[in-house]
Amino acid sequence: MFLHDKHLQFEAKPVKPDPLMAKRVQELIGGQYGEMSVAMQYLFQGWGVRKGNEQYKDLLLDVGTEELGHIEMLATMVGRLLDGTSIEHQEAAMKDPATAAILSGMNPQHAIVAGMNARPADSVGNPWNGSYIISSGNLLADFRANLNAESQGRTQAIRIYEMTDDPGLKDMLAVLIARDSYHQNLWLQAIAELEEVEGKITPGSFDRKLEREDIAFSLYNHSASSEESAKGSWAKGKTPAGDGKFKYESKVLVEGAVPELENPHPSLHSTKPKK
Amino acid sequence: MFLHDKHLQFEAKPVKPDPLMAKRVQELIGGQYGEMSVAMQYLFQGWGVRKGNEQYKDLLLDVGTEELGHIEMLATMVGRLLDGTSIEHQEAAMKDPATAAILSGMNPQHAIVAGMNARPADSVGNPWNGSYIISSGNLLADFRANLNAESQGRTQAIRIYEMTDDPGLKDMLAVLIARDSYHQNLWLQAIAELEEVEGKITPGSFDRKLEREDIAFSLYNHSASSEESAKGSWAKGKTPAGDGKFKYESKVLVEGAVPELENPHPSLHSTKPKK
Amino acid sequence: MFLHDKHLQFEAKPVKPDPLMAKRVQELIGGQYGEMSVAMQYLFQGWGVRKGNEQYKDLLLDVGTEELGHIEMLATMVGRLLDGTSIEHQEAAMKDPATAAILSGMNPQHAIVAGMNARPADSVGNPWNGSYIISSGNLLADFRANLNAESQGRTQAIRIYEMTDDPGLKDMLAVLIARDSYHQNLWLQAIAELEEVEGKITPGSFDRKLEREDIAFSLYNHSASSEESAKGSWAKGKTPAGDGKFKYESKVLVEGAVPELENPHPSLHSTKPKK
Amino acid sequence: MFLHDKHLQFEAKPVKPDPLMAKRVQELIGGQYGEMSVAMQYLFQGWGVRKGNEQYKDLLLDVGTEELGHIEMLATMVGRLLDGTSIEHQEAAMKDPATAAILSGMNPQHAIVAGMNARPADSVGNPWNGSYIISSGNLLADFRANLNAESQGRTQAIRIYEMTDDPGLKDMLAVLIARDSYHQNLWLQAIAELEEVEGKITPGSFDRKLEREDIAFSLYNHSASSEESAKGSWAKGKTPAGDGKFKYESKVLVEGAVPELENPHPSLHSTKPKK
Amino acid sequence: MFLHDKHLQFEAKPVKPDPLMAKRVQELIGGQYGEMSVAMQYLFQGWGVRKGNEQYKDLLLDVGTEELGHIEMLATMVGRLLDGTSIEHQEAAMKDPATAAILSGMNPQHAIVAGMNARPADSVGNPWNGSYIISSGNLLADFRANLNAESQGRTQAIRIYEMTDDPGLKDMLAVLIARDSYHQNLWLQAIAELEEVEGKITPGSFDRKLEREDIAFSLYNHSASSEESAKGSWAKGKTPAGDGKFKYESKVLVEGAVPELENPHPSLHSTKPKK
Amino acid sequence: MFLHDKHLQFEAKPVKPDPLMAKRVQELIGGQYGEMSVAMQYLFQGWGVRKGNEQYKDLLLDVGTEELGHIEMLATMVGRLLDGTSIEHQEAAMKDPATAAILSGMNPQHAIVAGMNARPADSVGNPWNGSYIISSGNLLADFRANLNAESQGRTQAIRIYEMTDDPGLKDMLAVLIARDSYHQNLWLQAIAELEEVEGKITPGSFDRKLEREDIAFSLYNHSASSEESAKGSWAKGKTPAGDGKFKYESKVLVEGAVPELENPHPSLHSTKPKK
Repeated sequence: MFLHDKHLQFEAKPVKPDPLMAKRVQELIGGQYGEMSVAMQYLFQGWGVRKGNEQYKDLLLDVGTEELGHIEMLATMVGRLLDGTSIEHQEAAMKDPATAAILSGMNPQHAIVAGMNARPADSVGNPWNGSYIISSGNLLADFRANLNAESQGRTQAIRIYEMTDDPGLKDMLAVLIARDSYHQNLWLQAIAELEEVEGKITPGSFDRKLEREDIAFSLYNHSASSEESAKGSWAKGKTPAGDGKFKYESKVLVEGAVPELENPHPSLHSTKPKK
Repeated sequence: MFLHDKHLQFEAKPVKPDPLMAKRVQELIGGQYGEMSVAMQYLFQGWGVRKGNEQYKDLLLDVGTEELGHIEMLATMVGRLLDGTSIEHQEAAMKDPATAAILSGMNPQHAIVAGMNARPADSVGNPWNGSYIISSGNLLADFRANLNAESQGRTQAIRIYEMTDDPGLKDMLAVLIARDSYHQNLWLQAIAELEEVEGKITPGSFDRKLEREDIAFSLYNHSASSEESAKGSWAKGKTPAGDGKFKYESKVLVEGAVPELENPHPSLHSTKPKK
Repeated sequence: MFLHDKHLQFEAKPVKPDPLMAKRVQELIGGQYGEMSVAMQYLFQGWGVRKGNEQYKDLLLDVGTEELGHIEMLATMVGRLLDGTSIEHQEAAMKDPATAAILSGMNPQHAIVAGMNARPADSVGNPWNGSYIISSGNLLADFRANLNAESQGRTQAIRIYEMTDDPGLKDMLAVLIARDSYHQNLWLQAIAELEEVEGKITPGSFDRKLEREDIAFSLYNHSASSEESAKGSWAKGKTPAGDGKFKYESKVLVEGAVPELENPHPSLHSTKPKK
Repeated sequence: MFLHDKHLQFEAKPVKPDPLMAKRVQELIGGQYGEMSVAMQYLFQGWGVRKGNEQYKDLLLDVGTEELGHIEMLATMVGRLLDGTSIEHQEAAMKDPATAAILSGMNPQHAIVAGMNARPADSVGNPWNGSYIISSGNLLADFRANLNAESQGRTQAIRIYEMTDDPGLKDMLAVLIARDSYHQNLWLQAIAELEEVEGKITPGSFDRKLEREDIAFSLYNHSASSEESAKGSWAKGKTPAGDGKFKYESKVLVEGAVPELENPHPSLHSTKPKK
Repeated sequence: MFLHDKHLQFEAKPVKPDPLMAKRVQELIGGQYGEMSVAMQYLFQGWGVRKGNEQYKDLLLDVGTEELGHIEMLATMVGRLLDGTSIEHQEAAMKDPATAAILSGMNPQHAIVAGMNARPADSVGNPWNGSYIISSGNLLADFRANLNAESQGRTQAIRIYEMTDDPGLKDMLAVLIARDSYHQNLWLQAIAELEEVEGKITPGSFDRKLEREDIAFSLYNHSASSEESAKGSWAKGKTPAGDGKFKYESKVLVEGAVPELENPHPSLHSTKPKK
Repeated sequence: MFLHDKHLQFEAKPVKPDPLMAKRVQELIGGQYGEMSVAMQYLFQGWGVRKGNEQYKDLLLDVGTEELGHIEMLATMVGRLLDGTSIEHQEAAMKDPATAAILSGMNPQHAIVAGMNARPADSVGNPWNGSYIISSGNLLADFRANLNAESQGRTQAIRIYEMTDDPGLKDMLAVLIARDSYHQNLWLQAIAELEEVEGKITPGSFDRKLEREDIAFSLYNHSASSEESAKGSWAKGKTPAGDGKFKYESKVLVEGAVPELENPHPSLHSTKPKK
């Protein structure tokens, strides 16, 4: 169960309103890698952790709960960035080019749907979607998803940081960026811990002999005009997982035949064979 | 530009039809981490690689092109798993309990919409979606997305492998699992290469002094009833990025005030203040 | 079955074109609470009304059919707001700041996809979605959904009314707002009628002794720092449903244990217990 | 900001596993009116409450925070309902008709994607979506949305209650149903409070003279073959809002002309006029 | 504006309930090519028809209005196919294999969400979506969309016809299939009419000299292993549009260079060039 | 399987950057009728072609593979249109009205999410969706879908061509438009071939006597106020399929009764009958 504290964990006060920045900040709330995504991803992962892995469960629930507070900070920020925006007399307002640019560029749903509040959506208005997140029950796989999310999220927060000169917005982003730094370190550490037990190829519990090991180390050149990728460190030498040696194949191995599929039952009324 | 070869790279022949397995295999085609996702993710990333990083570009386009062939193998497999399934006289067929279970469980769109062919959708019928993928222009962040995708994808392929006794389906999955193993090694290697240049906290080009470094190393306990997470290796000691030392804080730092938002312009007809 | 009359029920003629207003008006066509939503919601509810409730069926089909005509009026309005918008020579046009603001802010799909006509989408371009609507078979629940829809819809129409000075657009919105007023009254009345029979807690046919009545009247304070909600009329006194007395609990009742979930079968290759 | 307590607020222990019930219970987690919806809806509404309405803000955040705990209880329940489900040797298992029915009917993503854990999705697998929720800044409108959500949610929980004989699952549903009862009372009370100030037609701050009052009280018969709806209490007598008298019109008022739209600029290459 | 008649245009009475068939019939209501799609597509197209093309406008609105009645017939059919389905005591019911197969296969939302009524969704539960439809303002393009929709729709209705032995359901499908036949003829005719005026390459108003006419007649063989497509009638001879002669090119024409993209501004923190 | 060639098939070089045009060009990449749609549609159709129709299979795979290269050209174009766009110091930049209009109108995800690269999304930001495409197993139906796609796609490409003065962008669009011309001819030809075998009403393998032939030739006037559609060539004379004669019916045939649905089982807690 959860409790709430009315205080924001960190301040969320822009120096002045900016409806265009409000639109952009939505990416950090309801985007693919926004705070709704990391909050829900960590919580669903945490709720799925099984007996014997209480440390990971607690960790996921701690960080997921922190991220809920980040949604709150960002929603408050968006509300304030929209402060004082009037929707009246737009026709008159459009005569001033600076105002016109803002009015034409702002997210119309901020005014019409949300009354100048944040939306559970990204910077172009796509609603947040449960398919953004993953909780697989395999923690190594999932921590890699988390590291990915914090890497993308930090990149996006930094890009928005670069877009604004507002010291209040910059202060809040400096907090989020720092937490993303920590969370990258955190998942790197948790990943290292699990890799030590399971190995680097996840899931580690699958018998490697059951897979086609003969094709498990080769980069197949799929390019008719380039072998640049052959120069990479992934094309020769020991693999990071230590399970073999990288190979580079200039030509793709082809084992399969040209597929022929049987015609379906006439009750499907698909196209009959011509020949 | 692309070329096609009518041969499947590897064989895709089940020993016998199985419409329920056809439904499950859809997850590997059009699911969040299916082959449509990795193909499109690698290609979009590759198309976005800029001058001077031709090795990464070639690599991404090689692997993305390979994944296109995996969609093809899986689509062929689904077509064959649906072979011979008749939709006629279901009422009569439903009297046999074994047939009844298959008919009631199969994906109705396989018959009605696709004429016993694969769908660009996952195992419960959600159509594939562009929001499954990422291409950020930051390759370290993106390679972590790729490592995540191959980790989730291999886990899913293995779970489906465990579900079937069909040697033909198992053979094809053994190929896909092996390629997922290779691709995990591949992205691990490419990540290591980039981390050496940029450091482990991505993007590495952002001046760390601009973020709130004082809060960039702490795990805040957000639990009122548990400190299990304090025991993890992420709670003390040097960080994997080597940029500082982990700290554990039993109590959440609270800097912010209780937020008060100004009332919006009356033209929005939001609720007026009571007090 | 339905019939169509070529006349618009009410006029839909703006005094002059305005592509930005066309974008905003889309919210009333294909938004979460737009006319596509109320039309489809009332029709699906009406089609689901069962024997003995013909009055409600007729009412729902009457109003749903009216709303189909509202989509038509709005689609006509959008077509006219886009009238005369030329897409040629945008580079030259962009040199005039007022035109530039309009061109950059207009919905590109109005031109590219729809040839200057309305789209089945909202003001940011999300296509209308069947998940916006509800038809549950429980009319009291559904009439509350309808009252909600008309309340949100009227709020949105009024906000757009405030945005424009165009007397033609204002005239049409004055019609829609008036109909939303009527429909609020309508559903309020129909709700009151049903509440008299079933009681205010819906569905009224469920034996209240089967639910946990001991916890059915309490507001649990979930805030670590505030008891503002204790001052509300919902925290003490008789309930509106007349089924008991409101209580306020400063501390959340906690009955449950810390959950421990069994580890899944090894064939799932989830993370094994550490301890 | 939020805090977490490892205890479940209420117990979530089924007596025995049931993968089909796990699929159905998903509706209460990630469905249109599931706990993800009410949690996010109340929190977004609460974050948007402005100065002077602290009571409503606290109330929304209290209840939103409670609902986060309900997601947790349900996710735990789903994990346990899936306990012990093995995915191995399905071919053999399918020979037993009872097992076959369960295997063919269970949600394949529970096994393949989530490793026998809950998904952020509904009972047919649609991922949860931000467009399920509303936060408009107008609290009367939004509380009506909340009353609707609790009415639909309670109906759904009761239907699932009727589907199961498992006393553990029934116990947890009895808790959720009781809380839905309370929340219906709560929003009814809060609505009554606001209606007293603003009137029943929301938003109450819009000048009624600006709308077409002459058409704000009439039910237009849109049926060519039925006048059942004329018999309802919404067709005559005083309105619930007390702003006028209901009227019934056997024939639809038609004010508008047959619309003619100008042909768009030739650069759009739309169809030219035939005449 | 629209009017409604309480009579169904055609009967919709199955001889007996069948929840699995109810699930499948949903494809014809809310699927990509279901009646919601054709109704909305024809209406949006009709509302967008401009001055001088009143015949096409009337035609589109006539047929769109007819399709609204088809949704109604199908919704009624689904309600009746679900008749008498009880959700009580499923545990007991699951002991009978035939019942078990039905219960495990039926759409859980039919019971939980819709109270045994139709849903605005397809046969796997995806909600209907505005992106299924098109209205471009170019009638020749759009009539081809309509011909496509009726071709797919008729195929799907026929497949469902083959699945059932219920004479009542077959009767209703025989109506829908006949109307789809008519509508195919209808759009074929309207297409022929427009092609006569505009030519077969749409839009016909674009100056063909502005496109790359030298590459407008060639089929490029993109296969490394097959030239089957060279044998088709599309590879040589006069084109159907009469604008030239088909050519077959064994090798793909390659004009472009290997693309090199400039590195973005450092404020984006994308990966820097390695070289 | 697929191979890649690093060369673009055709050049994709704008003369100068233009972030607004980059936003619009997205429609051709990830829109309903963008290149992702045609590529995936043709490939899924090709993979589903059955034994005896190798010509069609090869054709579909040839053209689908070509379209993959078109995505690549467009993605490269978008990357270049975004070249040099700086996101720094927007506040200062917004003081220049021309820049302000561009910044407010550009797609924020181009900068924040994609680092100035293309997105798998349309011009308003909706991610590409598997439900845009069809592969039914009936080739005549599917080729009509393809003809539709090329007709819509060419219309959209031409509209964007009209919007730009950039000779580089125009050159690339001139290529795409020419290929769309060819593909229209191609599908027209393939359709003609199949229609000769199967007839024009698809699927041709369904016994026409099973449908309601008495209602298979009539246009029902659904308008209370217009008979414009009676004047069309679809209202009398021989049908294009040659299967009968068109009829026009001023009044809709009504065969059905007013539907009455049985009340569902009490366990559903739907509204009880009033009467």
